[in-house]
Amino acid sequence: MRVLYQVPAPMSKGPMGRAEMERRQALLNSWAFPGTEVEVRDTAEGPFSIESAWEEALSAPAALAAVRQAEEDGFDAVIIGCFGDPGLEAARELVGIPVIGPGESSLLLAAGLGHRFSVVTIEDNLVAPQEVQAYKAGVRRKLASVVPTGVPVLSLLEDREASTRRVIEAGRRAVERDGADTLVLGCLTMSFLDVAETVSAALGVPVVNAAKAALKAAELQVSIGLSHSKKAYPVPPKLRGAGRPVETR
Amino acid sequence: MRVLYQVPAPMSKGPMGRAEMERRQALLNSWAFPGTEVEVRDTAEGPFSIESAWEEALSAPAALAAVRQAEEDGFDAVIIGCFGDPGLEAARELVGIPVIGPGESSLLLAAGLGHRFSVVTIEDNLVAPQEVQAYKAGVRRKLASVVPTGVPVLSLLEDREASTRRVIEAGRRAVERDGADTLVLGCLTMSFLDVAETVSAALGVPVVNAAKAALKAAELQVSIGLSHSKKAYPVPPKLRGAGRPVETR
Amino acid sequence: MRVLYQVPAPMSKGPMGRAEMERRQALLNSWAFPGTEVEVRDTAEGPFSIESAWEEALSAPAALAAVRQAEEDGFDAVIIGCFGDPGLEAARELVGIPVIGPGESSLLLAAGLGHRFSVVTIEDNLVAPQEVQAYKAGVRRKLASVVPTGVPVLSLLEDREASTRRVIEAGRRAVERDGADTLVLGCLTMSFLDVAETVSAALGVPVVNAAKAALKAAELQVSIGLSHSKKAYPVPPKLRGAGRPVETR
Amino acid sequence: MRVLYQVPAPMSKGPMGRAEMERRQALLNSWAFPGTEVEVRDTAEGPFSIESAWEEALSAPAALAAVRQAEEDGFDAVIIGCFGDPGLEAARELVGIPVIGPGESSLLLAAGLGHRFSVVTIEDNLVAPQEVQAYKAGVRRKLASVVPTGVPVLSLLEDREASTRRVIEAGRRAVERDGADTLVLGCLTMSFLDVAETVSAALGVPVVNAAKAALKAAELQVSIGLSHSKKAYPVPPKLRGAGRPVETR
Amino acid sequence: MRVLYQVPAPMSKGPMGRAEMERRQALLNSWAFPGTEVEVRDTAEGPFSIESAWEEALSAPAALAAVRQAEEDGFDAVIIGCFGDPGLEAARELVGIPVIGPGESSLLLAAGLGHRFSVVTIEDNLVAPQEVQAYKAGVRRKLASVVPTGVPVLSLLEDREASTRRVIEAGRRAVERDGADTLVLGCLTMSFLDVAETVSAALGVPVVNAAKAALKAAELQVSIGLSHSKKAYPVPPKLRGAGRPVETR
Amino acid sequence: MRVLYQVPAPMSKGPMGRAEMERRQALLNSWAFPGTEVEVRDTAEGPFSIESAWEEALSAPAALAAVRQAEEDGFDAVIIGCFGDPGLEAARELVGIPVIGPGESSLLLAAGLGHRFSVVTIEDNLVAPQEVQAYKAGVRRKLASVVPTGVPVLSLLEDREASTRRVIEAGRRAVERDGADTLVLGCLTMSFLDVAETVSAALGVPVVNAAKAALKAAELQVSIGLSHSKKAYPVPPKLRGAGRPVETR
Repeated sequence: MRVLYQVPAPMSKGPMGRAEMERRQALLNSWAFPGTEVEVRDTAEGPFSIESAWEEALSAPAALAAVRQAEEDGFDAVIIGCFGDPGLEAARELVGIPVIGPGESSLLLAAGLGHRFSVVTIEDNLVAPQEVQAYKAGVRRKLASVVPTGVPVLSLLEDREASTRRVIEAGRRAVERDGADTLVLGCLTMSFLDVAETVSAALGVPVVNAAKAALKAAELQVSIGLSHSKKAYPVPPKLRGAGRPVETR
Repeated sequence: MRVLYQVPAPMSKGPMGRAEMERRQALLNSWAFPGTEVEVRDTAEGPFSIESAWEEALSAPAALAAVRQAEEDGFDAVIIGCFGDPGLEAARELVGIPVIGPGESSLLLAAGLGHRFSVVTIEDNLVAPQEVQAYKAGVRRKLASVVPTGVPVLSLLEDREASTRRVIEAGRRAVERDGADTLVLGCLTMSFLDVAETVSAALGVPVVNAAKAALKAAELQVSIGLSHSKKAYPVPPKLRGAGRPVETR
Repeated sequence: MRVLYQVPAPMSKGPMGRAEMERRQALLNSWAFPGTEVEVRDTAEGPFSIESAWEEALSAPAALAAVRQAEEDGFDAVIIGCFGDPGLEAARELVGIPVIGPGESSLLLAAGLGHRFSVVTIEDNLVAPQEVQAYKAGVRRKLASVVPTGVPVLSLLEDREASTRRVIEAGRRAVERDGADTLVLGCLTMSFLDVAETVSAALGVPVVNAAKAALKAAELQVSIGLSHSKKAYPVPPKLRGAGRPVETR
Repeated sequence: MRVLYQVPAPMSKGPMGRAEMERRQALLNSWAFPGTEVEVRDTAEGPFSIESAWEEALSAPAALAAVRQAEEDGFDAVIIGCFGDPGLEAARELVGIPVIGPGESSLLLAAGLGHRFSVVTIEDNLVAPQEVQAYKAGVRRKLASVVPTGVPVLSLLEDREASTRRVIEAGRRAVERDGADTLVLGCLTMSFLDVAETVSAALGVPVVNAAKAALKAAELQVSIGLSHSKKAYPVPPKLRGAGRPVETR
Repeated sequence: MRVLYQVPAPMSKGPMGRAEMERRQALLNSWAFPGTEVEVRDTAEGPFSIESAWEEALSAPAALAAVRQAEEDGFDAVIIGCFGDPGLEAARELVGIPVIGPGESSLLLAAGLGHRFSVVTIEDNLVAPQEVQAYKAGVRRKLASVVPTGVPVLSLLEDREASTRRVIEAGRRAVERDGADTLVLGCLTMSFLDVAETVSAALGVPVVNAAKAALKAAELQVSIGLSHSKKAYPVPPKLRGAGRPVETR
Repeated sequence: MRVLYQVPAPMSKGPMGRAEMERRQALLNSWAFPGTEVEVRDTAEGPFSIESAWEEALSAPAALAAVRQAEEDGFDAVIIGCFGDPGLEAARELVGIPVIGPGESSLLLAAGLGHRFSVVTIEDNLVAPQEVQAYKAGVRRKLASVVPTGVPVLSLLEDREASTRRVIEAGRRAVERDGADTLVLGCLTMSFLDVAETVSAALGVPVVNAAKAALKAAELQVSIGLSHSKKAYPVPPKLRGAGRPVETR
């Protein structure tokens, strides 16, 4: 199967650059089941990282266009490569192939591993949005807390060891103070640090790598012929009619 | 006080046109308290109406730019003129003046009028998003149902009597089948039909006009010096630093 | 419009006296929109302050009689001047004009300003009742905590600075320990200290003055022709019939 | 043990009269465990029946005085004889002996008999208050519905067979339409019809007689030395101090 | 009435032995209402104590056989003597007489004594299962916390004073840290220490002895002719048919 | 990887027999990713099918022994082959390899496909247990309903077409009456009918085959090195100590 990992940001033009895209593509392919081929693409415009509702809103239009392109290009599934799942519902309205949100996938995976999970996130301002995300996924009841590391997305890869330390510190607060028995890395750049096993060993609880969770959710749905419900995410009225003009922008 | 009613769509270029914007401005000013001046603006681009998550995502960037402009232009508050409150959280991150979402305002107003309210909406695909909206507003517990009329936004004004009939039919299902004791008109174009009183008389329950609810919420917050919490909606990290480049698009 | 602020206690006979009633009336009128006239009345009997379920029960009958009188006297709306909203549901059964509970109004206003709010209250015993109040208002989900100051109602005005300090201390616990991003002053006498702005400046979050919230809710409902749902609060069976004796006391 | 069943209404002066009080006292004593003695008292004033929030508020002050008297008279427990539990929280603040609310007791008993229960009530206007009651009792999750019979309290005893039929009809709606597996008779006069067994036989589900539930809750608490938590229902501040005047009415 | 207290473990063969069974029988009879006769039985096999989901699963089959035997032997009600209520739903499917779970009974009793209760339990691993138990009972909303003592079941009786101290310490955390106003002893062996009054005196809140709660729930249901709903717990399909083979093991 | 599909029943001795086990094994291997090998085993004793809490309790001990054996035999993951997930928590206490419950896996998968899902089950008595299952999985909020087909487990394979028709009828009630946008086949024998695609085509919504969902969950966890949290499901105290006797049965 062919899976597109769509970065909803112009990563190749930004500080991480094309090299990081290639690194992620290699990692994803190394994690995939035999027979899965993963391609990584970025968008032409938008913020370089998404750490606020503002940047999420700015990134969505280009991401949506990319999802439609993915279906046209024959991909079997598409992952929107940001934990905030920007444009997830809208993308599902536009296409029939599975559209995977790493945030949603990680939360649902974590819900099956224990009784209460926490999300390790970037900064304070993402706590409330990620609680809404857990509500939308349906697993709000199992969310123990959202704990920020305070390391900005674009700085995460600069000092891998320091970032890992901060993730472990935040995770420890979640486990010891909030009673979490499972952790989720609430950021894709944090997930591509590929340190879930290190954090897990340090804290004694399973740690969900959101990139892996998203890839596996894509492979799972494709392999058993499922996709999102079109009753839940119907084609927008303006796109349904044959003779009606659909260009609204 | 000066309140901006920002249509998050290029209404002047669309089928409703500038005349409808002027009609709405006149209505809003007629509903305002003495001393309030309301201006209606539209955006330069985006879908003509918002009836799906897809259109909501497309409309947000221009709406956000308009909200920032509103603060620069000295408005005391800004209303995002769509029941789906597109870009509401993002807009609150960007400015300090009150940013009013008609959806949120209407749901909170309805919550104070009875035990269970229903929202009359456009089509089926908006039922789930409006339940999330009620969750975000904090009043999900009082939401009896979301009931569609099946009349597209751009057709609502074509036959005012037929539209009113459809609203009453949907409202009756909410009251009789779902036990609602209060109704909310879940669309701004539906609200600007200005038929809340007619619907209320037909069904014997209060009916919230979302345009009035938004205007009054704006006037209320400005008059007592309140606005959204900047602890809840902090300035995005990239916009905080003095010496850091903030242009991300 | 004419709004009655009904103190549900014999304030003029108590330690605060008629002077305090006049001070409150002046403040309310200074906060009102142009065209609004507020009158403050007290009751002939009942406890001087309401700090327990016991006092709330004792104060309700006289408050209910006063609400009926308000409608007969042609007021457009009536505010029951206590955060506990004593007799609110009963009063709404008895009249058609808006009956405003400052508790309910404040909680709904706070729900629109952020993600999680806390109420600053008098003593421990009010924590549970105010949680029920948040449930009744429909916004229990957004209630972070109820935090007592430990200052009795009748002592709040004795030392304005000390009281303000205690409110700030309680508010700080709510913000720092409980994660509140918005505060509500959970007592009318506390609200009439008129220190919301001071507390807000000290803590960096919006602070809702319950007296202002109630006044604005009254003005809002009257200005757009809404009142509580009579389907939610129907006239009591014994008061409906023409020929049936209604005097039950 | 000595249990007081306190009617929160001047029943002896009303249409049911002293005979009905004596009938109830005889029934209660016939249901009691050996060694329990039940006395029935009414109040000097208040509405003859409680079918609205208005009447509940009017009945509370006299009921509270009666509860204090009960403790002074050496009763081991007191039941407030109305399903709405008027003044329950306030009464628990005033005394140390168990104060039993038949509504609360019935809901908690029903919660232990199945997965979902419904309450058969008087009229529509009690649906919302009884949902709040279930929330307060903590068992809102198990409440399937509140279903009215439409028979006023004071008419229930007039035609016992007709009343029973109406209770069965309402109960059938609860079982068949709302999926209830257990029923509660949500009115004390309905409970003193003593038809729970008849209704149960007709519908095939257990039916809780609220008078029995209250009596048994009283006997249970007294027999094992428990009463309500004074941390939950503390003595009101004004009644605590030795030298402070406590008379507020 | 005759009540069976069925220990779901082979207590007579274990470290506590038959003497402990006799001690419990004496205590239960001393707590009972006049006319109630309690018998204590154990099972032939299974773990000696139940401190994990594993042991709960192992203990259930023998407990279920014992419950069926109880009904055949003419008991009026049966108590499954473990706080985890092993096999409770299954047992109710099998018989018509009341089957009492001490966990469920205690939680429902505690819900009627205050606003928030905590359960004092054995070890950490029981926290999540007891939260599910509170959900099943319907009173999850009132559960403040589950607090472990760290004393294994089989060691509880070894040093009564030390055990009491540990219970008080755990209870103090529940009251002071978690805001509980009522406590439940979440283990039957802990309950048969018979120290609820001592713990209550030390902490100033009511403390529910689960053995007493279960006994009283049994007496209550029998005395008023109620039992669990057979609509909620129907006879398993394989046991219904007359001519169908029911032996499945 | 090697996955054990453990039937928690003595299927080879029952009406379905060894042939059905072999058929299931062939199907599972045909659904697996390359490199996955699935073995199907049954237990030596227990009921032939699990359609009640009683049978679930009877089946658990043998299933638990089988799970321990699976780990000893070197399997990478084990699936407990019944939708009710009998013994799931207990099994996770006993081993470190992933223990997959088809019920839990299906519910979490369905939660990612839409807003509201329904479970098609066997008979009425499973409605409440499956609601508890959804609560335990953390996705109770998204459960629209549990709808029975009325076809006993052991009859499902007798007439494949008739069974499919009944599943479609039940699914239609879920979609049309209860608003489900996604369905789950709530029984493994129903899932091994392998008709999810047929049902999906008939109703226009995704249909989750619980056997596939469980297999994929097992493959997913193994492939990314995750398993259930041992903080959530710790080894039972009695099995931890080296020198302590662990045989309790």
